[in-house]
Amino acid sequence: MAMKVALLGCGVVGSEVVRLVNEQSGELAARIGTPIEIGGIAVRRLDRDRGVDPALLTTDATALVTRPDIDVVVEVIGGIEPARSLMLAAIKAGKSVVTANKALLAEDGQTLQAAARDAGVDLYYEASVAGAIPLLRPLRDSLAGDRVNRVLGIVNGTTNYVLDRMDSLGAGFTESLEEAQALGYAEADPTADVEGFDAAAKAAILARLAFHTQRVTAADVHREGITGVSAADIASARAMGCVVKLLAICQRSEDGESVGVRVHPVMLPVEHPLASVKEAYNAVFVEAESAGRLMFYGAGAGGTPTASAVLGDIVAVTRNRLANTSVGEGAHDTGLPVHDMGQTITSYHVALDVADRPGVLSKVAEIFADHGVSIKNVRQEGTGDDAQLVLVSHPAPDSALSGTVEELSVHPMVRDVASVMRVETFQE
Amino acid sequence: MAMKVALLGCGVVGSEVVRLVNEQSGELAARIGTPIEIGGIAVRRLDRDRGVDPALLTTDATALVTRPDIDVVVEVIGGIEPARSLMLAAIKAGKSVVTANKALLAEDGQTLQAAARDAGVDLYYEASVAGAIPLLRPLRDSLAGDRVNRVLGIVNGTTNYVLDRMDSLGAGFTESLEEAQALGYAEADPTADVEGFDAAAKAAILARLAFHTQRVTAADVHREGITGVSAADIASARAMGCVVKLLAICQRSEDGESVGVRVHPVMLPVEHPLASVKEAYNAVFVEAESAGRLMFYGAGAGGTPTASAVLGDIVAVTRNRLANTSVGEGAHDTGLPVHDMGQTITSYHVALDVADRPGVLSKVAEIFADHGVSIKNVRQEGTGDDAQLVLVSHPAPDSALSGTVEELSVHPMVRDVASVMRVETFQE
Repeated sequence: MAMKVALLGCGVVGSEVVRLVNEQSGELAARIGTPIEIGGIAVRRLDRDRGVDPALLTTDATALVTRPDIDVVVEVIGGIEPARSLMLAAIKAGKSVVTANKALLAEDGQTLQAAARDAGVDLYYEASVAGAIPLLRPLRDSLAGDRVNRVLGIVNGTTNYVLDRMDSLGAGFTESLEEAQALGYAEADPTADVEGFDAAAKAAILARLAFHTQRVTAADVHREGITGVSAADIASARAMGCVVKLLAICQRSEDGESVGVRVHPVMLPVEHPLASVKEAYNAVFVEAESAGRLMFYGAGAGGTPTASAVLGDIVAVTRNRLANTSVGEGAHDTGLPVHDMGQTITSYHVALDVADRPGVLSKVAEIFADHGVSIKNVRQEGTGDDAQLVLVSHPAPDSALSGTVEELSVHPMVRDVASVMRVETFQE
Repeated sequence: MAMKVALLGCGVVGSEVVRLVNEQSGELAARIGTPIEIGGIAVRRLDRDRGVDPALLTTDATALVTRPDIDVVVEVIGGIEPARSLMLAAIKAGKSVVTANKALLAEDGQTLQAAARDAGVDLYYEASVAGAIPLLRPLRDSLAGDRVNRVLGIVNGTTNYVLDRMDSLGAGFTESLEEAQALGYAEADPTADVEGFDAAAKAAILARLAFHTQRVTAADVHREGITGVSAADIASARAMGCVVKLLAICQRSEDGESVGVRVHPVMLPVEHPLASVKEAYNAVFVEAESAGRLMFYGAGAGGTPTASAVLGDIVAVTRNRLANTSVGEGAHDTGLPVHDMGQTITSYHVALDVADRPGVLSKVAEIFADHGVSIKNVRQEGTGDDAQLVLVSHPAPDSALSGTVEELSVHPMVRDVASVMRVETFQE
């Protein structure tokens, strides 16, 4: 009895899934004990050559996902609708679902999960975060007996490529983005990547899994992109032994009663394992109570790597089906709420263009103190009218830090706030 | 209905398992839907304080593993016997088994796996390789739909610590080992670590999972330790932009018809993600056909990280039990045989102390050519009687390379073979 797969969408990822299933059919069948077959592929238009058997194509996706001979539905069309309705119809018809749809999972994963649980089918989505890197399954299964305190991830290859070029070539943001676009690492409209929307969706998915809380959606994620990162920021980071990375950060609060989820540029010490993640690679760093520090690294995107993750999920569904079970995530929800960015504890790097006059540092230090922010170190660069004060704070609530910067930015002694960026520390 | 755990052994890992189960009982129960309880602990002697409830202790391990109320047996005593007999008795009695026993799995994993399959119970061993790093489950499950071509791993923390100290401090092997022993990173008898036995057992387990072949045992692993690595080797590596790492390498042959499994020191380019793995950390680099390059990084040893991996396995067993199933590895065996080290394709770095006379290089090059080995690059260091020729070969069968070195070592023009080490290349 073959395992029959219905595919929704036949773009970059979908066509690779078809190719891998066909090329490896013998090996896969031997490995899992039953063959996997593509039973049908729903597309919007039939008149395009997709390099797949045209007899498999249909424009009636609803009929395909409820077809009695279909065992598992693979959704790679993306977006909220019709993806959600089709997956819910499939689940209702008793089909397991494999999806790479981060936007939908981040916005409304709860609905899909509840439906899968009620129907006793599997819902797997390894490909939705960090492409081929096995990450969600380890978080869900291997670390199920541990307590995750923090997740730091480079989960968007485009922005990592752009920042890496800015760092290694001293290039500006626009120039680096154009190069990324020319090489196919960035899309013509790069908004979803460079403004952090893509990373924010993945951050929400990671937070839900890491902290076993269904409460986190993309809307709860504090999001800042990299369009404001300047060559001066990169140089300032370098002067401190840091690189700039766009990180997705999911963190349990000190009291353990809430979680913070955010995406923003960070100055990261070069000793940190994430600092050496180059080009468009992804990596996720996990801090767990017992397991300690873990890192998962690999290709975060691309048709073939993403298809590999989809295929891994299809195999898992098949094994469960053969064992006549579905091993889900469990209905348990810690219900941990998400706290505001203002309550999140962070550290700031602030570079201020100031007049090199007596009393400036004292005034600046006073403003930090007024907001309850303690200064970790300060250095002055240049002299006279070109003086720059570079300050790094100790950890403090983000609202106190942003309040400090706001006051500094309008103070007459400060000509310009040249650079503001959050800093992560790292102790080996 | 609580999930009852019988523990075999209560040393560093066992006592941490007990602590974690007790401390996180509420959280775990909520997360997986049923409580986990320690039902009994088999120890050799009752008269030692282990910080656990004495009422749980017993010296009758056989009675414990077959006790009707026990659901899962956790084996952390290590060694071949009585571990094997106890696990087989437990499996026969219908208990699932979680073990961290790399030596037994590498020597006779097949027997345990066959018994578990016949009994329809789970056999999990995430903690046996690379401690808390979720590695075996991703290899088995997430990459189940992919084809792994190569695995390169730093799987022994002790040797990585020693080599890291030699590299960063320019220290010698003995001195670095003594420091590792003083810090508890190396045992009083360091043989299992420094001679590569520990890494070889892990390499066998990795090869079995990565290539779906039951044929690999510890005895099939070509093994060289780090006792022969000198400060001169480290310096020579550095001159080439490399660091020295002890790697476990599992590799599919070019024709895909066999696998090679080996543990030996390697000169690794600093750009390779494994090169920056410091101190006693572990990391495993996987090259898969579709997923591309992946790396898994974290603490490879220690009571708490290892206990975290054990607990993850207990949770997996519990979820399967609640779903009334066991989701095993499948009986499929590609049966891929292991080829000899001599047939493995490698590259050599060779440093020769020679007299700086006309014709030496030509003679050396001739010896390489006679063995069918092509030279990638050569440089001369020093002059006159202190001259050293440093050669790096192109990839060739290891037997051709070792034959070349053997002939060089007895040639009158070569005063001494100062350093021989295999080299891995890396293209970003």
